[in-house]
Amino acid sequence: MTAKPAIPEVGVIMGSKSDLPVMQDAVDVLKLLGARVEVTIVSAHRTPDRMFDYAKSAASRGLKVIIAGAGGAAHLPGMVASITHLPVIGVPVKSSNSIDGWDSVLSILQMPNGIPVATVALNAAKNAGILAAQILAVSDEQIAQNLLNYKAELARKVEESAKELEKSSAGE
Amino acid sequence: MTAKPAIPEVGVIMGSKSDLPVMQDAVDVLKLLGARVEVTIVSAHRTPDRMFDYAKSAASRGLKVIIAGAGGAAHLPGMVASITHLPVIGVPVKSSNSIDGWDSVLSILQMPNGIPVATVALNAAKNAGILAAQILAVSDEQIAQNLLNYKAELARKVEESAKELEKSSAGE
Amino acid sequence: MTAKPAIPEVGVIMGSKSDLPVMQDAVDVLKLLGARVEVTIVSAHRTPDRMFDYAKSAASRGLKVIIAGAGGAAHLPGMVASITHLPVIGVPVKSSNSIDGWDSVLSILQMPNGIPVATVALNAAKNAGILAAQILAVSDEQIAQNLLNYKAELARKVEESAKELEKSSAGE
Amino acid sequence: MTAKPAIPEVGVIMGSKSDLPVMQDAVDVLKLLGARVEVTIVSAHRTPDRMFDYAKSAASRGLKVIIAGAGGAAHLPGMVASITHLPVIGVPVKSSNSIDGWDSVLSILQMPNGIPVATVALNAAKNAGILAAQILAVSDEQIAQNLLNYKAELARKVEESAKELEKSSAGE
Amino acid sequence: MTAKPAIPEVGVIMGSKSDLPVMQDAVDVLKLLGARVEVTIVSAHRTPDRMFDYAKSAASRGLKVIIAGAGGAAHLPGMVASITHLPVIGVPVKSSNSIDGWDSVLSILQMPNGIPVATVALNAAKNAGILAAQILAVSDEQIAQNLLNYKAELARKVEESAKELEKSSAGE
Amino acid sequence: MTAKPAIPEVGVIMGSKSDLPVMQDAVDVLKLLGARVEVTIVSAHRTPDRMFDYAKSAASRGLKVIIAGAGGAAHLPGMVASITHLPVIGVPVKSSNSIDGWDSVLSILQMPNGIPVATVALNAAKNAGILAAQILAVSDEQIAQNLLNYKAELARKVEESAKELEKSSAGE
Amino acid sequence: MTAKPAIPEVGVIMGSKSDLPVMQDAVDVLKLLGARVEVTIVSAHRTPDRMFDYAKSAASRGLKVIIAGAGGAAHLPGMVASITHLPVIGVPVKSSNSIDGWDSVLSILQMPNGIPVATVALNAAKNAGILAAQILAVSDEQIAQNLLNYKAELARKVEESAKELEKSSAGE
Amino acid sequence: MTAKPAIPEVGVIMGSKSDLPVMQDAVDVLKLLGARVEVTIVSAHRTPDRMFDYAKSAASRGLKVIIAGAGGAAHLPGMVASITHLPVIGVPVKSSNSIDGWDSVLSILQMPNGIPVATVALNAAKNAGILAAQILAVSDEQIAQNLLNYKAELARKVEESAKELEKSSAGE
Repeated sequence: MTAKPAIPEVGVIMGSKSDLPVMQDAVDVLKLLGARVEVTIVSAHRTPDRMFDYAKSAASRGLKVIIAGAGGAAHLPGMVASITHLPVIGVPVKSSNSIDGWDSVLSILQMPNGIPVATVALNAAKNAGILAAQILAVSDEQIAQNLLNYKAELARKVEESAKELEKSSAGE
Repeated sequence: MTAKPAIPEVGVIMGSKSDLPVMQDAVDVLKLLGARVEVTIVSAHRTPDRMFDYAKSAASRGLKVIIAGAGGAAHLPGMVASITHLPVIGVPVKSSNSIDGWDSVLSILQMPNGIPVATVALNAAKNAGILAAQILAVSDEQIAQNLLNYKAELARKVEESAKELEKSSAGE
Repeated sequence: MTAKPAIPEVGVIMGSKSDLPVMQDAVDVLKLLGARVEVTIVSAHRTPDRMFDYAKSAASRGLKVIIAGAGGAAHLPGMVASITHLPVIGVPVKSSNSIDGWDSVLSILQMPNGIPVATVALNAAKNAGILAAQILAVSDEQIAQNLLNYKAELARKVEESAKELEKSSAGE
Repeated sequence: MTAKPAIPEVGVIMGSKSDLPVMQDAVDVLKLLGARVEVTIVSAHRTPDRMFDYAKSAASRGLKVIIAGAGGAAHLPGMVASITHLPVIGVPVKSSNSIDGWDSVLSILQMPNGIPVATVALNAAKNAGILAAQILAVSDEQIAQNLLNYKAELARKVEESAKELEKSSAGE
Repeated sequence: MTAKPAIPEVGVIMGSKSDLPVMQDAVDVLKLLGARVEVTIVSAHRTPDRMFDYAKSAASRGLKVIIAGAGGAAHLPGMVASITHLPVIGVPVKSSNSIDGWDSVLSILQMPNGIPVATVALNAAKNAGILAAQILAVSDEQIAQNLLNYKAELARKVEESAKELEKSSAGE
Repeated sequence: MTAKPAIPEVGVIMGSKSDLPVMQDAVDVLKLLGARVEVTIVSAHRTPDRMFDYAKSAASRGLKVIIAGAGGAAHLPGMVASITHLPVIGVPVKSSNSIDGWDSVLSILQMPNGIPVATVALNAAKNAGILAAQILAVSDEQIAQNLLNYKAELARKVEESAKELEKSSAGE
Repeated sequence: MTAKPAIPEVGVIMGSKSDLPVMQDAVDVLKLLGARVEVTIVSAHRTPDRMFDYAKSAASRGLKVIIAGAGGAAHLPGMVASITHLPVIGVPVKSSNSIDGWDSVLSILQMPNGIPVATVALNAAKNAGILAAQILAVSDEQIAQNLLNYKAELARKVEESAKELEKSSAGE
Repeated sequence: MTAKPAIPEVGVIMGSKSDLPVMQDAVDVLKLLGARVEVTIVSAHRTPDRMFDYAKSAASRGLKVIIAGAGGAAHLPGMVASITHLPVIGVPVKSSNSIDGWDSVLSILQMPNGIPVATVALNAAKNAGILAAQILAVSDEQIAQNLLNYKAELARKVEESAKELEKSSAGE
């Protein structure tokens, strides 16, 4: 969308490759909104060292926001937030071993005082991407404008489908 | 903490005066971290016009982040987020009419695609304040430094109480 | 069913076109019971201005009852109720992003004091339609009679299937 | 409030005397809004005959709306709704034997198709009263006007406490 | 199984024909255990008069135990128990409109003091049948003997499948 | 109440002395209804041998019904039911270590096919006693008559408090 | 993997043959990690005597750890733990009659003080096997080494899939 | 209790000093059962480096089992288990910010495959201590004997209070 240099400003990470179908939405909407994004797999439980390295180096590598998705007893977002001072957005993923998603939601949301995680709805990686863009937009006018356009488009689509429904039900 | 001008950058709002004991924590930690903050009461349900005006004018008045706390069927954070493109942080408040807090949590967290709310833990207004500071810190080095100091202080306190516990249990 | 003029007395709205398969039941049963009904799409989150306009003009346009269906963090019924003094019936919809419907139920039901929403069961748009007809029937004798007939028909069908079951199990 | 004749238009019933502290709010707000109300105790489980008689005679005695409150496995609202065609508003009461109110909420809300109960929030008898007034207001202009005044007063109080909070926090 | 006269001693009722696939298990196991059983459809909500008549005449018609199954806001078992002094066994049915069965379970189980319902597990109509047989067996030696045989058979089957599993895993 | 011989027909057991304040209600109502009752402490987890002996000898000692109360992961009712063919009534007790009673309820209610436990509401030992009396009443006319009187008394009390409430609210 | 003698050190038991598809994971991972394992079916409810014999003889037969899986009101792990002093690992199984697994989880996890069960996640028989191996590894260096290798392999696989994802997303 | 050398074999850690009233039970019962125990504070979120160091050095320092207690989004037990191959026992603590304990329970219990945590009941630090002793007892005959004595004492106390209850109720 722009000629900005390649240094990513949003890092999207997930606990397992199986989370990718959910988490890809974050990557896609971030690109749509003009943010530079990188994506990889980091497991708090299976690669704790990798997780520490990722979180410790995030700010110095130029990242401004981190999106972390995980399922079940989801510790990745909270642990990354414990290590970096960057804002961390958590995406509870309804993984196959989850109890209807409650475990993912609660283990990401209910962080103790001092270490917040900005939690979005179950499987709502798209909203995580939009939220990351909103954070960047605090100091990036281009992304702010893209967000305003995006909101206008959301409204336009609702109004369009409203018109269709009214027409079809009037014609009954 | 600084000689910054008086225009607030974080707006803290709540649905009712009875939410203030919880929400004050957000105001306090934001001041501690060097952010300029304003606070008022805005009810989505009892003052919908006031809520619309607040959200519509927020960006142009200079606000960069909004923290909204509400209990029960908590619509304030989500409705503000529907109107502004600023990042909105939602604080589920365990109000007297709440079913153990579940209603507040779910009606803030489970926003549909397109309109995120950055949700923190039940009653965790302090974390909402820290998260708002983290968002400002993306483009404010002073607040970033304050956050790093704050994290170091959190660690120092744990280590201190660990030493005390080890000493007292060793002396048993 | 009657020669009444065309001004609708019940407005059926929903947050998204995807709610239509559920919400159509309300429209159908209202027509069956002799009520004049209009239907459209209004999203609290994606079209907040449209929602305000709809709710503010509802009474003056002649509507007497509003049925609003939404899923997830469902703010549409409560926000409409905050703007109009008409009775608002909320239908929690078990949308694809819902946590088993609990989010929709709680964010519609648990309204604060002052702003009620008449909530029906999860996905129970048919019951929302019947309830709207019951409200109209307070001052509409034709609809009252239609409701009595409807209840009699419900009972007749149970008795019929009871007879069938008794016959078949007796014949075992 | 008015010179209307004494025939009650709203019946408020509850399963037990112990529900009165909660249910009194419905009576009070109905009187405030100018509706004629009667109140008594009817237990679906301990006085099933009394419950049948009450529900069967309700419409002919002149009642237009029934508010029924009950706790635990709360069958009173649904059973009354099964017998009369009047709109029935259910108030889930968090009684001493309730599991955090979930049993009351679900056994009132989750009515099968054909027999709606207009459910309000846990212990929200005040909202039940307002909802009953909204239903009467469909054909009673005085109550409609009272409701508009009531809503305006709710807004005025929020704005007042907002001003106080802004003043006190500005003065810090 | 015996030459007993035809007067049924257990009545199996359900709120809707759609509950029959679940409730048939009660009928089948009762016959297997030598109890005389009748089955029909009685809806608390759609046929309240029929429900009253059924419950009021149950003891005088010779019934000794009633099994009642229902889904959602399941009032049938509790209402029958409010009218008769016979033991009533409630089967929560996970019907299509149920929130994962929680509504059925809680609205049957959480009866107020004075009016018990003997509740079995979700969809566990077979266990309701066995429990009814256990109640009859208090004064019916033949059924008591059949129950002892039934329990022995349950144990035998487990031991048989244990042997098979041990053999197959030993042979790995 | 009667000159019946001393052999108890209902055994009331509980997992711990701390359950006695809840379980005493079962003993009291059984005596009131004319049933012979014994009471003791049997822990499935701390005295498994005692539990086996109790359950195995129950029928031969003359018991006809067993009431078992337990909290948390409550295995006592289900394990007793696995050993005896007598009807077993389970009382979920909201003990201090319980998660709001859900653990007690589910671990008593959700028995597998073949081994029913007649579960009553959380802490509802009184209802367990009444249910046991209803089971005895299938073959004991005196207890049946006592139950009918008990039900009549329940109704009388409701009607009495209804009259008081109507009088006091009329006199307002 | 080794020439160790055939006496099993871990016993894997389950309440029903239908639990085998879940529980087989425990057997497989234990063999992979070099532990000697036996597997059979023991039902607390249908074969209480068999369960007692199994638990009472476990230590003397040479078992060091027991893994017990069960669904619904799952009493097997807790009852085995009440009889033996060996560590017992409980696997909540989401069986067909379970309410989303909550009953299995709570009836295994919420054991009273004095009788612990080491509970793992819903259906997590593989983790039960790993935990049993960790317990054996306290005094078995070979298994300890196998566990270290297993952990390294888990990390290696994550890093591999991370590389693949980074490559593919870079190539977009 | 013994002349064993001072190297601790069980490490008890907790996320905050406020967890000590709960966690002390683990320390006390371990000492009672003859195990050598150390106790300190380690916060996964506020001292991630300290947590890593603790977990990485645990085995080489001679620890054989780790007990970790934490509340809310409780990541300590799972993160320690991700770093060490020692068995880790998790104690969900119902801290002040917890939603009735559900967050603590689920974020400890629902670990992904590969990284088990042996979870005990909410606040059940005593059971965590007993479980740790059972694990040590696999290769420590003295602790095994202490456990057998402990179990016998549990049974003795139940039998004692049973006798008291039987005597007092007989004397009524």
